[in-house]
Amino acid sequence: MAKPSLPQGTRDFNAETVRKRNYIFDTIRAVFELYGFQPLETPAMENLDTLMGKYGDEGDKLIYRILDSGNPFTANFFLELGFWFKKASEKHEEFKKNNPQLATETNPYDFPIYQLNPDFIKIIADTLSKDETKKYLPKLKQETSGKALRYDLTIPFARYVAMNFGQLTFPFKRYQIQPVWRADRPQRGRYREFYQCDADVVGSNSLLNEVELANIYATVFEKLGIDVEIKINSRKILTALAETCGGADKMMDITIAIDKLDKIGIEKVKQELRGKNLDENQISIVEKYLLIEGNNVEKLIELNKLIPSSENVKKGIEELEFVLNYQQPLTAHHSPLTIDLTLARGLNYYTGIIFEVKAKNVQMGSIGGGGRYDDLTGLFGVPNIPGVGISFGVDRIYDVMEELKLFPEQLQTGTQILFFNLGEKESKAAFNLMQTLRSNNIKCELFHEQSKFDKQFKYAEKKNIPFIAILGSKELEENTCTIKNLKTGEQKTVSQNELPAFSFDVA
Amino acid sequence: MAKPSLPQGTRDFNAETVRKRNYIFDTIRAVFELYGFQPLETPAMENLDTLMGKYGDEGDKLIYRILDSGNPFTANFFLELGFWFKKASEKHEEFKKNNPQLATETNPYDFPIYQLNPDFIKIIADTLSKDETKKYLPKLKQETSGKALRYDLTIPFARYVAMNFGQLTFPFKRYQIQPVWRADRPQRGRYREFYQCDADVVGSNSLLNEVELANIYATVFEKLGIDVEIKINSRKILTALAETCGGADKMMDITIAIDKLDKIGIEKVKQELRGKNLDENQISIVEKYLLIEGNNVEKLIELNKLIPSSENVKKGIEELEFVLNYQQPLTAHHSPLTIDLTLARGLNYYTGIIFEVKAKNVQMGSIGGGGRYDDLTGLFGVPNIPGVGISFGVDRIYDVMEELKLFPEQLQTGTQILFFNLGEKESKAAFNLMQTLRSNNIKCELFHEQSKFDKQFKYAEKKNIPFIAILGSKELEENTCTIKNLKTGEQKTVSQNELPAFSFDVA
Repeated sequence: MAKPSLPQGTRDFNAETVRKRNYIFDTIRAVFELYGFQPLETPAMENLDTLMGKYGDEGDKLIYRILDSGNPFTANFFLELGFWFKKASEKHEEFKKNNPQLATETNPYDFPIYQLNPDFIKIIADTLSKDETKKYLPKLKQETSGKALRYDLTIPFARYVAMNFGQLTFPFKRYQIQPVWRADRPQRGRYREFYQCDADVVGSNSLLNEVELANIYATVFEKLGIDVEIKINSRKILTALAETCGGADKMMDITIAIDKLDKIGIEKVKQELRGKNLDENQISIVEKYLLIEGNNVEKLIELNKLIPSSENVKKGIEELEFVLNYQQPLTAHHSPLTIDLTLARGLNYYTGIIFEVKAKNVQMGSIGGGGRYDDLTGLFGVPNIPGVGISFGVDRIYDVMEELKLFPEQLQTGTQILFFNLGEKESKAAFNLMQTLRSNNIKCELFHEQSKFDKQFKYAEKKNIPFIAILGSKELEENTCTIKNLKTGEQKTVSQNELPAFSFDVA
Repeated sequence: MAKPSLPQGTRDFNAETVRKRNYIFDTIRAVFELYGFQPLETPAMENLDTLMGKYGDEGDKLIYRILDSGNPFTANFFLELGFWFKKASEKHEEFKKNNPQLATETNPYDFPIYQLNPDFIKIIADTLSKDETKKYLPKLKQETSGKALRYDLTIPFARYVAMNFGQLTFPFKRYQIQPVWRADRPQRGRYREFYQCDADVVGSNSLLNEVELANIYATVFEKLGIDVEIKINSRKILTALAETCGGADKMMDITIAIDKLDKIGIEKVKQELRGKNLDENQISIVEKYLLIEGNNVEKLIELNKLIPSSENVKKGIEELEFVLNYQQPLTAHHSPLTIDLTLARGLNYYTGIIFEVKAKNVQMGSIGGGGRYDDLTGLFGVPNIPGVGISFGVDRIYDVMEELKLFPEQLQTGTQILFFNLGEKESKAAFNLMQTLRSNNIKCELFHEQSKFDKQFKYAEKKNIPFIAILGSKELEENTCTIKNLKTGEQKTVSQNELPAFSFDVA
């Protein structure tokens, strides 16, 4: 028999890890709720056409598709389908001969079935007999058009808002904590199944939302004990920079280059911009922009000097000032919010304020990010709903907390007390006592069989159970119970009535 | 643009439903922990060969397989594969002619690709040129062999135990609360994505585990406020019945027939047994067995009369008596545990005590079930680990609680207080006050923009926010805040310092 294994890029979480992860989830969830966000859960499976085309070509390739089971692909199915395509392809060749404008088209079969050229689909249908059409088309559709695994939480959220538009109260504030799946190459810290933690507000242009979201970041990381820098910028400032350096249409080119600054350094960014046809003067402005330093106020002053007469810079600065001033006076030195003009947030659909969170004191990529977008639900036929959202990178937060030893020790208390099994009569008494303790929220177990003390001790030790209880004939007679703290070795005889009030917390 | 939709048999859960579902999950989880069970989480994706063949032929068909993405099936792929199979099939026909013993075999292509006849696979490989083998085999393997969605929590648990055998402490007690997926025909109350809630102990033969699990059932349903009957039986008694009625090999036939008693009635059960070659005398024993009535003690006495001299009946009765006597004296009339000799638990792998839970006062199938099994991890090469487990049917529990109106009303408190937006200065003051309230765990929001009171009231109403706060120029001057309870209409002016201590609970 083959040794069982897990799919690459997936993980089992044992009790210790589940508890630590839940500590992060619970902390984030509680803060989301303090800020008026409400939970939403969407299914792991979405219709394929809900997801396809939303994440760029590269993203599309990373979507896990699900086969409608029950009728799995049989070899026979391939065989028949092969003949069928063959038949259709001959007709198609003829069709191309009569339609020379199609002669240069690429091989019409070289597409996923669900993306086949409609012309070709029509030829297939025309080629087949009625019986064949009946036989193959539904099966082909069923097998391939179906479903896919959730790739992120944003598109399902947009789909939900579009589907339930009439029932929702706007601004609609939702949070969502669920796993997503990506057919990515697994590597250290990158998994094929991982959790996302998002909060979004849609249906409001108010910058008060950005203020609240920045505060959610600050509050969550304070509660987790992680010292962070919350970086903030505005996409409008990046637009202004592009307008000054070759025109607004250079915005994405410049943004993508800037986004790589951390990884490739200033010289390579300049080289990349040269490749995008920026002249040396324009590149020097970008360089000056990237070198702007100082505290938040100083940065904005420098920025205003570099790009003085732009409407977008004005708006971008106003946005930043609004958010920063709500936190505390802009001049405060201890602000957790730092303007980072080099912050770009890659290829995303952001249009206004953008965020990114980095942990101090530890080498790690961003542990959170987000920003404002203009028209997410437009993809699903409901236009003009602006929104803003943030996301927490739970796997990285977990790694940071492990590295800095930030998980509280008492998290790992499972069972608090193990009753030794000393025989049938004693077990029954222990069982009754345990029922009382449990109704007082004390977690306890009775060892499953009467066996040597040594074996029972080992079980307690291995399971990290801090207390053991002995209920032998002497104790039964005296209506007491002997409690031993395994950490300190301390032993006490307690009256059974007083046991529920005994402190079973770890010293 | 097509209106977005959800895959059949899947659901979005809005805030209200998430809260209610979490109430059920949290209750079950807390009780599991009180009894010393530790959490485990396994990935949604398992290797296909971990799951295939574990759920019977019908189950196998309901497993959702996942396509390794990146290289989706192209029409071209089908086309080429078709030719390839055609080529191989001609060889295969020849092979069959020379091997007449294979002439009667079914169409070798009528299988899922991953289950193809090994003979045929070999012919395929022999038929192909080296180049073709290189081209097709890895792709075919990659596309089809891959992964599948978790179908239940039991097999992944067994896989986990087998994989981590050396690291675990036995008896190993784990609970798991996660979704599973089945390609079943969706219908009322049956979904393609739904949660399971399991607790299992493996590595112990002790009946104390059954006692504890029965108590978990009793405690959870008491906490949820659902009046239940916990039915209990032993598979050993069913074995004894079979031994008396045609031999031990009739055990599954009799069990399957008995399992249908509720649905088809006694006459049809008898008819089914006739079909399984039981004679009228044997059938009459089964009928007498099914008609045994009375309290727990009376049932066991009748049973002992019907099948007096069987080792298995003796063992089965001992098991039941052990579990019942631990709960309370066997003669107690208010026992939540009821012996139900007609309980069979269908096709499952149980070997000892079996459980099933039904809600009283409401028409609904079982809301929980479980039992003892002998050798689950043997499937994965680690034999002789006995175990026992129970499962909660969360969707049905939810429906029962809805029908009986058992969800606590205060569950639905999201935001407790909405601060009206009365302008910039007022908003900043509200923002600061909110920060204080939030650090006192009071959930609050500020309306996102300055607008008519009417609009702000409506938002509070629609979101079911019980209190609103007015912080206008007068209140700012006096350092107070006006609080209105939207349910009672009561209005109070409170000093800002005292606000964190104000009771924002719903009256």
